[in-house]
Amino acid sequence: MNICVAGLGIIGGSMCMALKRAGLPVWGWNRTKKVADYALHNGIIDGIARDFVAFDVVFVALPPEATVEFINNHAFKEGAIVADICGVKVWIEEEIYKRPRNFRYVGCHPMAGKEVSTIYNACADLFDNASMIITYSGATDFAAVNTVSGLSQKMGFARVVECTAAAHDKKIAYTSQLAHIVSNAYVKNDELDGCLGFTGGSFQDMTRIAGVDERVWSSLYLKNSQNLTEDISRLISSLEQLRAEIAKGDKEGLEKCLREGRKIFESRREERTLWGDITVTEFK
Amino acid sequence: MNICVAGLGIIGGSMCMALKRAGLPVWGWNRTKKVADYALHNGIIDGIARDFVAFDVVFVALPPEATVEFINNHAFKEGAIVADICGVKVWIEEEIYKRPRNFRYVGCHPMAGKEVSTIYNACADLFDNASMIITYSGATDFAAVNTVSGLSQKMGFARVVECTAAAHDKKIAYTSQLAHIVSNAYVKNDELDGCLGFTGGSFQDMTRIAGVDERVWSSLYLKNSQNLTEDISRLISSLEQLRAEIAKGDKEGLEKCLREGRKIFESRREERTLWGDITVTEFK
Repeated sequence: MNICVAGLGIIGGSMCMALKRAGLPVWGWNRTKKVADYALHNGIIDGIARDFVAFDVVFVALPPEATVEFINNHAFKEGAIVADICGVKVWIEEEIYKRPRNFRYVGCHPMAGKEVSTIYNACADLFDNASMIITYSGATDFAAVNTVSGLSQKMGFARVVECTAAAHDKKIAYTSQLAHIVSNAYVKNDELDGCLGFTGGSFQDMTRIAGVDERVWSSLYLKNSQNLTEDISRLISSLEQLRAEIAKGDKEGLEKCLREGRKIFESRREERTLWGDITVTEFK
Repeated sequence: MNICVAGLGIIGGSMCMALKRAGLPVWGWNRTKKVADYALHNGIIDGIARDFVAFDVVFVALPPEATVEFINNHAFKEGAIVADICGVKVWIEEEIYKRPRNFRYVGCHPMAGKEVSTIYNACADLFDNASMIITYSGATDFAAVNTVSGLSQKMGFARVVECTAAAHDKKIAYTSQLAHIVSNAYVKNDELDGCLGFTGGSFQDMTRIAGVDERVWSSLYLKNSQNLTEDISRLISSLEQLRAEIAKGDKEGLEKCLREGRKIFESRREERTLWGDITVTEFK
């Protein structure tokens, strides 16, 4: 199987390293030649791709717009698998299926990352114990999904989660995008300065991702704006409720409100059994 | 120096263990005899106190109301140091100074904890590398502060931060109480269920403290309600701003808003030099 990764940033670079760790040869492509040369000279890839018609699988590890542009402007082998790794799936699926394709598209979202970017921070174990989300629609070829699932296992992922692009976007708005929004909003407070000695783990947790790249994340937020604005509204409403109880000085009402949150949290269900539209395959 | 810790929960128990680790004998007291017996039989304390007039230093490691009740209902040696560990300081200071005292009061707030409680989860290294906040007022005896500061160093604290009770409450509303409020509000979303495979570190960070004891925290929130409601309002306003940019679909406006947060975060200053009213003493 001839594999190529297009876009050698932290995700693409780590995919190459993880595939090579599993003994698979992998070629790479990058817009900036310097990065591709670095990857080749450091054994992260086995060769630099000039075109893509020779590959059975092409992982496109680029931002959403660049992914679509890349796919539209290149030719692929008939029946090849082309998989993206974007953090929003409805938007990209719509873009892909705007025209007939000779390849089999598989939408992916590796649930791993770092607060830093570029191939210089890539590592072979980035996906170890993480989840690979694979999205499907009526147009999806399930043999292609199985191939990508098998490659995900080889990359070190602990599980593959399969669902529709819409289910993905709804969940991810809550579990990831909202968290990034909160962190960015949390630091906008005059008390941020001079905190030495007043912070514990909870403060570190709230603020860790406040400084992520605004170009990357604004693009993701805007492509999932309905889900995300609903989640922000839901959070604001819960905060307003707590603020009202505190302002009233109503210990019983405040305790009740906090208890609700604790009970919801303690009785949460992670398992797939509740979710007919989400399939989880554990590799270990 | 005869030391006693009154209230053998996770903080009080850990204080005993940390003091004994440093070679200091320490006596303990607990409302429930079973817990005091456990501490004695497991070498966490050297004896069970029946009264407190023999002690030079008494750490009261109880919730706010219980702390005031304990101090009002017991006799202490003339000039003894009595130090509390409550997470709000203006309220407790006012309660303490409502009547003349024959002891020297020192307000403390050890910035360490766990998501679990009770002496069974106590450990000798709970305070290692943490901060001990000590609050002062016009009535504070600075020799007593120095003694508590020295004992904090022996317990493993990395630094002592000294400030007024008001400065403490303002900072702590933002760095700790608001974080707990956000976490509790964050989980109130139908998407919490079935998250397996859709979560990374950012989701764990946001929700980790959602299930803390509502009785403990509601009491703290209500004793610091003005600072805390202001911080909640500040956060809501930042969230509303981000929501508006997302809803408008304005990439430039959204990027600008996110960039503001990133810049604020990246240029934050932790150092004490900015803060004349907060003194930090590093032990290492």
